[in-house]
Amino acid sequence: MKPVPEDAPEALRALVGQPVTQIDTPAAVVDLDLMERNLALMASWCRVHDLRWRPHAKMHKCAALARQQIAAGAVGVCVQKVSEAAALAAQGVRDIFITNEVVAPAKLAHVASLARILQGLGGRLAIAVDSAEGVAGLAGAMGRQENSIDVFVEIDVGQGRCGVPPGPAAWELTRRVLAQPALRFAGLQAYQGQAQHLRSASERSAAITRAAQAVRIARAEIEDQGVPVELVTGAGTGSFPLEVATGLWGEIQPGSFLFMDADYARNEPLPGTPRFRQALYIRSQVISRGPGHAVCDAGHKAHAIDSGLPDVLLTPGQSPLRYANGGDEHGVLRCVEPDGQLPAVGDTVWLIPGHCDPTVNLYDWLIGVRGGPNHGVVEKLLRVDTRGCMT
Amino acid sequence: MKPVPEDAPEALRALVGQPVTQIDTPAAVVDLDLMERNLALMASWCRVHDLRWRPHAKMHKCAALARQQIAAGAVGVCVQKVSEAAALAAQGVRDIFITNEVVAPAKLAHVASLARILQGLGGRLAIAVDSAEGVAGLAGAMGRQENSIDVFVEIDVGQGRCGVPPGPAAWELTRRVLAQPALRFAGLQAYQGQAQHLRSASERSAAITRAAQAVRIARAEIEDQGVPVELVTGAGTGSFPLEVATGLWGEIQPGSFLFMDADYARNEPLPGTPRFRQALYIRSQVISRGPGHAVCDAGHKAHAIDSGLPDVLLTPGQSPLRYANGGDEHGVLRCVEPDGQLPAVGDTVWLIPGHCDPTVNLYDWLIGVRGGPNHGVVEKLLRVDTRGCMT
Repeated sequence: MKPVPEDAPEALRALVGQPVTQIDTPAAVVDLDLMERNLALMASWCRVHDLRWRPHAKMHKCAALARQQIAAGAVGVCVQKVSEAAALAAQGVRDIFITNEVVAPAKLAHVASLARILQGLGGRLAIAVDSAEGVAGLAGAMGRQENSIDVFVEIDVGQGRCGVPPGPAAWELTRRVLAQPALRFAGLQAYQGQAQHLRSASERSAAITRAAQAVRIARAEIEDQGVPVELVTGAGTGSFPLEVATGLWGEIQPGSFLFMDADYARNEPLPGTPRFRQALYIRSQVISRGPGHAVCDAGHKAHAIDSGLPDVLLTPGQSPLRYANGGDEHGVLRCVEPDGQLPAVGDTVWLIPGHCDPTVNLYDWLIGVRGGPNHGVVEKLLRVDTRGCMT
Repeated sequence: MKPVPEDAPEALRALVGQPVTQIDTPAAVVDLDLMERNLALMASWCRVHDLRWRPHAKMHKCAALARQQIAAGAVGVCVQKVSEAAALAAQGVRDIFITNEVVAPAKLAHVASLARILQGLGGRLAIAVDSAEGVAGLAGAMGRQENSIDVFVEIDVGQGRCGVPPGPAAWELTRRVLAQPALRFAGLQAYQGQAQHLRSASERSAAITRAAQAVRIARAEIEDQGVPVELVTGAGTGSFPLEVATGLWGEIQPGSFLFMDADYARNEPLPGTPRFRQALYIRSQVISRGPGHAVCDAGHKAHAIDSGLPDVLLTPGQSPLRYANGGDEHGVLRCVEPDGQLPAVGDTVWLIPGHCDPTVNLYDWLIGVRGGPNHGVVEKLLRVDTRGCMT
């Protein structure tokens, strides 16, 4: 059952030092100049706002990038799955928050073990809870060691997914956490995921106003019992200046800002948001030409389409192109303008994925380039350490 | 740059001999009884129709299943990518057809090398072409060795993606193939992918009638020049009895029949089609409960949604549930009936993926179980050998 390490040759699709024009296709290419610019923008925004910043590593899935974010000032990272936390911890990430519910006993045993290991290394593990079953299971797995895992009570701030309602249920669950010696009540997890993709700034603002009201209610329920809520954490790339403006959130969790995607590009910018730029591309090649269309070798096995189809990057000398779904393995390209010129068989076409997180999840390696998509050079290969981490 | 074989522990999510109820979630589970029934149905259908049968391995992506299909009577398998062909060949699959266009010189060098190796082992490699550039590139990569790769001229039978038009262009490209000593003209690739997912049997029938007309035109163009078309190959799970009924196709390429999916289940059955049954499931767990909904741990990182959301398997004692998109990591479950009962935190929910091929691509291992989703036992782990094979 030992797996054959067959992805080693896959890494040979791009060698450090090769020109970008020699990267085999399709490939996920990160423009390191733009990525580092995005990172610096976020770091300085958080410094200016005196804010804890814990980027969501479910987006980039790379331990090397998590470490780079922490070196730039992030307090740690978020993940969604226990297996993601384990993979990042194995690669030197020491402060990890699982912003999700975990209830399976086998997973909770893994959480408890990881929490102790990280604590022993001077780091920490945190986790969200939203049910009595979750608290009891976590406490059972942790055993008697005091305060050895940070627990955030997740409240539903309007998404209608996970989280307890912000009223009395928030206190009821907090009380259960406080009753368990092994668990340390660390505050509230309050993330409005749907708000990230509302197109107009005013819609996003209204959604975060409602989320803030939920946070105020939950906080009052808990603090009225004499228990301080030391931290409210949440917020994503599409909304974080709104959460911060309320003064309620003390830590933000944006992930996508580092790479960006076509979906975020369709959002009306919020006043006061740094202008993050697209840094993740799919390099693809035209493999077929038909009457009125060209076909590239990147279908939805090469980029996620849950948030819509990719945009085609307009490069010098190319006519504007529109991407149509050609199935798992193909993209169908047509000219936007009637007098546009289709690319020829063999030509390169750069795609901007609809959604960054699940696109990254399709690749074992991201290819980091310096000097842009047309004249750059491969600088490093980034292993996607939590690719496929489901559990 | 050597990758750490971190997916070994992932395999431990299910151990051979464990009950299905202990498989960690989310997981891709194959009901081996139903899969083998589907395989036997297809094998006997092809025997009865005296038909060559070359299943598309882009669906299951497992060398073990490719070998099992060949043992059951398939002449070989199809793939879409050079890297898939290499990964399957490495695991003992000897007769492979790349049903797609390849034009990059580095890839064509790989194709040529693989063709020679397989020929030396008594096997063979075939590939599709639809452009003069593709033929010239392939011939250049193959060098002087005679007839060492089978080449199928792909014609567009109505999908509007790859393939030359069936008229004079089909002969023009065939002529180019014939002019290259290293290439053996093996026939026509004629696949109508869009037809597979037309819901009504009559729509699919009309699409395949048009595809057959394209095949007749292309064949006449070529045979009028004195060159026999020895084989027409194509057809998928949704349409293959229609292609076979025309008498034009001598080889069929269905892949999905082995596992099936929610999208194929929505098709009106064709008269004369074997009744394939759903054999691939995602095992998920409820991790959160809200007012009127439950949340499971399988979002679109755990199943592909390009062909729609998954169906929820109705299991004894559970009320019918509807799945709504909850993002990458969550599914939101609601009762179909007003008096239905939602599953509790910790309960198992089985999903039927919308589309099998890209769902399999999200997993390193498929978990093969015997005895059904509720009382079965893990019999074997199937490594997804071509998972992530993009190039």
